[in-house]
Amino acid sequence: MHMIQLIGFDGDDTLWHSEGYYQSAHAEFESIVGRYVDLADARLHERLLETERASIRLFGYGAKGMTLSMLEAAFAVTGGRIAADDMHRIVGLGKQVMAHPVELLPGIRDAVAAIAHHYPVVLVTKGDLFHQEAKVAASGLADLFRRIEIVSEKDARSYTRLLLEFGVEPESFAMVGNSLRSDIEPVVRLGGWGIHVPYHVTWAHELDNGLQPEHDRQVIRVDAAASIPKALAALQSRAQARITGRD
Amino acid sequence: MHMIQLIGFDGDDTLWHSEGYYQSAHAEFESIVGRYVDLADARLHERLLETERASIRLFGYGAKGMTLSMLEAAFAVTGGRIAADDMHRIVGLGKQVMAHPVELLPGIRDAVAAIAHHYPVVLVTKGDLFHQEAKVAASGLADLFRRIEIVSEKDARSYTRLLLEFGVEPESFAMVGNSLRSDIEPVVRLGGWGIHVPYHVTWAHELDNGLQPEHDRQVIRVDAAASIPKALAALQSRAQARITGRD
Repeated sequence: MHMIQLIGFDGDDTLWHSEGYYQSAHAEFESIVGRYVDLADARLHERLLETERASIRLFGYGAKGMTLSMLEAAFAVTGGRIAADDMHRIVGLGKQVMAHPVELLPGIRDAVAAIAHHYPVVLVTKGDLFHQEAKVAASGLADLFRRIEIVSEKDARSYTRLLLEFGVEPESFAMVGNSLRSDIEPVVRLGGWGIHVPYHVTWAHELDNGLQPEHDRQVIRVDAAASIPKALAALQSRAQARITGRD
Repeated sequence: MHMIQLIGFDGDDTLWHSEGYYQSAHAEFESIVGRYVDLADARLHERLLETERASIRLFGYGAKGMTLSMLEAAFAVTGGRIAADDMHRIVGLGKQVMAHPVELLPGIRDAVAAIAHHYPVVLVTKGDLFHQEAKVAASGLADLFRRIEIVSEKDARSYTRLLLEFGVEPESFAMVGNSLRSDIEPVVRLGGWGIHVPYHVTWAHELDNGLQPEHDRQVIRVDAAASIPKALAALQSRAQARITGRD
């Protein structure tokens, strides 16, 4: 028996705006570095991104990891010529991202509340624990979630562990989120269900996704939060059809 | 019936060495800043610590929060006179702490294994999710723990939520750790049990503790990991005595 029994929601760019703050911090960062080196030079720009990527592997995702990675990259790409007050300005960009207001996406509160009325709902977010907890608190949505799970990477391993702790089979779990790579793909590969709510900007490191056509029936894409409850009902029908052999 | 049923272990300075790495990074940081300002001047030194404390409130604990807080404090205390390569050196101090080797404390593997043979054991650590997960993986101890819980603050609220999720009363929970403030005090106030294993250095922000004499019977202090299983047996006897009214 594999009816859908547990619903997960992503946080950043699914419940509240986030990526825009990172992208504007990054644009400001490039304008600071661009005073020292010519970022129109594609090789220099690529070197900047590569240095950042290498630092992210050490520092992890999130505003603090991003800030430290930008400091490393700025120092390297400018050959140490960057001024201390520009280094300090980059620290300030991180502070801005850490302190940005939490603005819910339109209709999301009603959508989560409607689903929480019928199912246990968990929040599954990635990134910096301290920052994510602060955003959950500021969102005013914490009470709707049975549990808030902050993971360092949203992969098959994290989802498997979470579902084991809940005693729920992957086939009985549906995940709602804006990222195919982090929210949808690992869940449907395990046998679960996905509701994809694309956000208007996507982080460059999230662009690649491995969703295969054979998983099509496990995923519904919606263009607004208000459509999430209806999409869940449709997935539940598919799950039931699978049980009764009508699928 | 309140026998002890679940055992929590702290990570940093209980399972593996940690504080020493932070303290040596901080000493190096002060020597960098000391080239610009006279830190023998008590007011300047106090201002440096105060600027760090203010930044920690925004950035949180852990190596990344510490690094960004040091950058903020260094820039402020030197009035912006610090050189960019010294700012970069401070970023490097953070990298060193993030990448330090995970060295287990003497006897801790056997102590955890002995207890895990009889009880479910959970790891409850504070700080940066990414860094803590990396340390757990490097420790080789992950398999001994039923669950690994990384929290941003070890307070009554975090412990209460954790125990609710396990369906265990506080009176049936014992926590093992080096910090009275984070590991022992919140647990015994909730009615639980504590095994205090002091570490030879303590972080300045952890020094204050609120342990009251009325909680004396709930806590045993041991001086080495090898004594933890015996201390747990003694606490279990006390818990049973309480049930049978012999206490």
